[in-house]
Amino acid sequence: MSLPAESKIDVLIIGAGPAGLMMATWLARCGVGARIVDKRGTKIFNGQADGLQCRTLEIFDSLGFAHRAWRESNHLLEICLWNPDEHGRIRRSARIPDTIPGISRFQQVVLHQGRIERFLLDAVEEAGSDIRVERGVAPTSIDIDESRVDDDDAHPVTVRLRRLSEEEATPEQAAGSGDDGPPVQDGLFRSNLAPRDDADRLLTAAAAGTEEVVHARYVVGADGAHSWTRRQIGLELEGDSTDYIWGVLDMVPITDFPDIRMRCAIHSADAGSIMVIPRENKLVRLYIQLTTTERVGDEAARADRSKLSPRVILEAAQRIMAPYTISYRKLDWWTAYQIGQRVGTSFAVHDRVFLAGDAVHTHSPKAGQGMNVSMQDSFNLGWKMASVVKGQAHRCILKTYESERRQIAQDLIAFDHKFSRLFSGRPARDVMDTEGISMQEFKTAFEKGHMFASGIAVDYGSSVVVAKDDGHGRVVSDQSAAPHVPVGRRIPSVKVLNQADARPWHLHELLPSNGRWRVLLFPGDVTRDEQRQRLARVAAAFDDEASFLRRHTPVGGRCDDVFEVLTIHRAPRTQVTIFDFPPVLRPYDETDGWSYDRIFVDDVSYHEGHGEMYRAFGIAPAGCLMIVRPDQHVSYVGPLDDPAAVNDFFARFMTDQSRRGSVDSKTPMPAKC
Amino acid sequence: MSLPAESKIDVLIIGAGPAGLMMATWLARCGVGARIVDKRGTKIFNGQADGLQCRTLEIFDSLGFAHRAWRESNHLLEICLWNPDEHGRIRRSARIPDTIPGISRFQQVVLHQGRIERFLLDAVEEAGSDIRVERGVAPTSIDIDESRVDDDDAHPVTVRLRRLSEEEATPEQAAGSGDDGPPVQDGLFRSNLAPRDDADRLLTAAAAGTEEVVHARYVVGADGAHSWTRRQIGLELEGDSTDYIWGVLDMVPITDFPDIRMRCAIHSADAGSIMVIPRENKLVRLYIQLTTTERVGDEAARADRSKLSPRVILEAAQRIMAPYTISYRKLDWWTAYQIGQRVGTSFAVHDRVFLAGDAVHTHSPKAGQGMNVSMQDSFNLGWKMASVVKGQAHRCILKTYESERRQIAQDLIAFDHKFSRLFSGRPARDVMDTEGISMQEFKTAFEKGHMFASGIAVDYGSSVVVAKDDGHGRVVSDQSAAPHVPVGRRIPSVKVLNQADARPWHLHELLPSNGRWRVLLFPGDVTRDEQRQRLARVAAAFDDEASFLRRHTPVGGRCDDVFEVLTIHRAPRTQVTIFDFPPVLRPYDETDGWSYDRIFVDDVSYHEGHGEMYRAFGIAPAGCLMIVRPDQHVSYVGPLDDPAAVNDFFARFMTDQSRRGSVDSKTPMPAKC
Repeated sequence: MSLPAESKIDVLIIGAGPAGLMMATWLARCGVGARIVDKRGTKIFNGQADGLQCRTLEIFDSLGFAHRAWRESNHLLEICLWNPDEHGRIRRSARIPDTIPGISRFQQVVLHQGRIERFLLDAVEEAGSDIRVERGVAPTSIDIDESRVDDDDAHPVTVRLRRLSEEEATPEQAAGSGDDGPPVQDGLFRSNLAPRDDADRLLTAAAAGTEEVVHARYVVGADGAHSWTRRQIGLELEGDSTDYIWGVLDMVPITDFPDIRMRCAIHSADAGSIMVIPRENKLVRLYIQLTTTERVGDEAARADRSKLSPRVILEAAQRIMAPYTISYRKLDWWTAYQIGQRVGTSFAVHDRVFLAGDAVHTHSPKAGQGMNVSMQDSFNLGWKMASVVKGQAHRCILKTYESERRQIAQDLIAFDHKFSRLFSGRPARDVMDTEGISMQEFKTAFEKGHMFASGIAVDYGSSVVVAKDDGHGRVVSDQSAAPHVPVGRRIPSVKVLNQADARPWHLHELLPSNGRWRVLLFPGDVTRDEQRQRLARVAAAFDDEASFLRRHTPVGGRCDDVFEVLTIHRAPRTQVTIFDFPPVLRPYDETDGWSYDRIFVDDVSYHEGHGEMYRAFGIAPAGCLMIVRPDQHVSYVGPLDDPAAVNDFFARFMTDQSRRGSVDSKTPMPAKC
Repeated sequence: MSLPAESKIDVLIIGAGPAGLMMATWLARCGVGARIVDKRGTKIFNGQADGLQCRTLEIFDSLGFAHRAWRESNHLLEICLWNPDEHGRIRRSARIPDTIPGISRFQQVVLHQGRIERFLLDAVEEAGSDIRVERGVAPTSIDIDESRVDDDDAHPVTVRLRRLSEEEATPEQAAGSGDDGPPVQDGLFRSNLAPRDDADRLLTAAAAGTEEVVHARYVVGADGAHSWTRRQIGLELEGDSTDYIWGVLDMVPITDFPDIRMRCAIHSADAGSIMVIPRENKLVRLYIQLTTTERVGDEAARADRSKLSPRVILEAAQRIMAPYTISYRKLDWWTAYQIGQRVGTSFAVHDRVFLAGDAVHTHSPKAGQGMNVSMQDSFNLGWKMASVVKGQAHRCILKTYESERRQIAQDLIAFDHKFSRLFSGRPARDVMDTEGISMQEFKTAFEKGHMFASGIAVDYGSSVVVAKDDGHGRVVSDQSAAPHVPVGRRIPSVKVLNQADARPWHLHELLPSNGRWRVLLFPGDVTRDEQRQRLARVAAAFDDEASFLRRHTPVGGRCDDVFEVLTIHRAPRTQVTIFDFPPVLRPYDETDGWSYDRIFVDDVSYHEGHGEMYRAFGIAPAGCLMIVRPDQHVSYVGPLDDPAAVNDFFARFMTDQSRRGSVDSKTPMPAKC
């Protein structure tokens, strides 16, 4: 038997679901070499998670494809709460906007996961990368050479990969489940009601495929709730599953229920609860509480799969929604699941093997969070790993992945726990009915949960890449310089105008995800001498040999390979031109001439109103300065007069390129940025 | 020699530029069989017309791809006028918004013609049609059987096609024109300074390719300014060329001119004029007035091509823009042309062979009109021809193509004539300088020209498909029912909410180009008894056996194959549900249940304001009723109380399907609508 092929790669991603593909997209856009493997032979085409938070759409926009999701998806505008009235009959008791007005330029939408994966796959390709998903490929072993985990030049992780046969790579589907018509796909084979099936397969068919040994600098395990990677590296999920069992139907409803195209939470008097999620293509998803549970051996309570069918779930829905009628002729997909709420004890080993997505947190799908939080895990990790692999940043920043994302996962579990309890419970008949759920409490929780569920409230703690005012590091933000731009959160977005052509842009549109850090200068009204002089001093500091721009940008690269400086002033647009700003703020290129996309103005547009950014951000006339991470989170806010703080901030974790002498030929420059 | 193959087709399109491709897109979306041939072997990749009016973007949006143009294009926001000051030095004298605020949800943009053709080609394919451009195919003869032109079942036009060799299908390019660097493409071979080359080629290489005889119901000649089709059917262009000669450079400018990313009209004191058009990908197009002309034989004055080069044009630009400097390292394309202003004496022969685009009107490119008016020609013709071919409408409606579009072409020539004279002229030194052009007059003309140039002002005259109040037909609009929705123009667009899910939509988004007529009902506040009863009477009339819905919809087809009835009420959204509206206004389908996309409300949205449609349209509390053509132009406005007018309107030109007995199997239903 010949020895397996051996190869080296910067990053190996295991699992090509949303979390794995998001990681691949980041690496592709940053020009980092990577491979991504998935044991499944094909991508999925229906069912699965599908709610997209507004923060997720902002991230998609930064990757260039939010418009595709926005156009194809169903938009959720309003939540209707239905409860029993005094006669026990359901009636609409409240309407709530589905996304809090004003927090984002996007609102929550619903779109099938298969489309999201398609957009990510297209984004990888459009980045000019040669990363392609290798399907039907499973890892069989993983080893970390602990003696080399701190060596920047090492590939200390060794993974053995095996190509599966077609049969192995095709998940078993439950037998034709159509008790109401033609067979439809169900999700039981991937829900947590199905047993683990990967370990068995690999043992029984080990001789079938070719093997390969991959030496990787980093490995990302994004291989789902039953993560093979997690088990191999010895990490655990903590938490429990509950006794609640839910059925899911994706169908084209035939009904006289008037709010079927709204997101609805329906609590019946004593027949259980339904969540209604209207989807694209006339589909509606119903999450329906079932009661069939049985203990199986020493496992936690698990449902008797043989008793679950679309008809059983539909009949439960009909009881809950009575006296309204509901049925279907077209069923797209169905499944059933138990709620398990678990989070990983740790998110990484030696900062060389990382877990992301369902591999480190599982929870109920009804809050529409799963795919979002999973993609946001790798959106957090991707740029950090890229900048380390490219030699721009020290390995220390990788620690912030766990410190930032584990907190989010814990918050999510707490949110889900509370929400699930309120949703699964029987509504209280009156205030004396203390065993029932207060519908007022449910509504309040729903409203409070909104900000969390939007993804906008994510607030990363103090670290080497977040200069909060808590004594963690040497550089400390002065939040008063822009009180409405909280350090740690993603920067808010309003419109500003390009000085050179008067075109309005949302600030976020100026911050695409290409791995670059942004330094935002807000010099105020530059027709005032005082502000013009302040700006000149900042520009001189940035132009200095000792500045972050010179120290951390590879010699011979473009001046904006690592940092982009954007200036947003508030003099009247027509009173100045770009030539009134120091040249370092609008760099010159021998072929392209002056840069026309660096100087912006907070002024009124002809067709799209006035963003009022200075007012929205709370910036005083003296101006301010911000550092924004490649993922749009705010690292630092401070006075315009302190450019040295920027140097100090970056000196803590960026490599000194002036000492490296020249661009490292091993680390390719971004293909597209 | 074997006989050439013979075939039948509903529509043959000659020429695959923007006008021909727009025609193909319409036919594809309406499910009509068509072929499109072009003698060129490849589509073009740079240079050429590239301004897109806001009306053109609205049309693109109705075809599903405005977002692609919007994202890729450069947006023009402001026009800067530069004139000599009292010392003869140029200075900015005025700023004008490039698109009049409020007239459209789009603004003028610039994008290379090759991309527009790509979007249209993709739209044809996405419509599920098998229409594909047959390149390198030229017509060699065309015959019309006049005895059968009025026979609905006939294919009276016979066209002989010949497949060209690769050499024939490749336009000759001028020899490497790079006097300033590497060779670049120039446009001389397609500008009107190049001689006609098609006739020669076809004679000399007649034996090279296979021939085919096509019998078509209809032929559309969209084969450009030197239209073969036009000459074959004996139609002429009337008008003149002028003595003005212009050079065009598409380059990445290196300049200290502060408005290089604005659209600028620069009149120098005595070195001529420049138009600056900033484009995508850092390109800027300069239109530069040259003075080199010579008479050649008995032709109108034509330029000496040998004296034209990028360097000659750039040097002219440098003289005009002094004391600012301008140069380039990257030249993308260049050309030179004389302004010819001509319009066809007739646009069609026997309403069987039609001309569209440059084949029937030529003019200067500087107003950014060419590609727009050309595509709008076939956008006007496409739905009419589709509905005739499908047996929905009588042939009489085809006459409105010429009556509607020839007027537009004449208006365009008049606009272009005035604009070119003002732009090409030397600026007046003072009010006594009557030979010079008054810069105030120029600015006024620019501002006035804006509405015309937007394409929004197009106002079709009274005809069988436009019920204006001029005694032309039996059905007459009552414009007072919606005074701000002028009959003949495209309907304005503001936002309304879907009653079923509260999602805001621009009205235009509800009117995609799929060949359907729309009847819009505005019943006012349906919580008022009076309005509810009015609406009930209209609904009953629409549901009647004698209604237009029953008479003109094919038996066995879907109820909305030909007409879509949309209701926009103004009761508070939360006070009603779709079940408060008569069923005919929200049709039921056995598989899909009730329609959720027919009832809309003029109310405030959570995230996108309040469209205030009733106020914007001037609709009184008693409500009104409108008929909108498949191309979004308003056919009829009248009181809500007169549903019989709708029956009368359609009876004039729609076929009575109840008499046809069943759907004609020869006429396929729309693949996608």
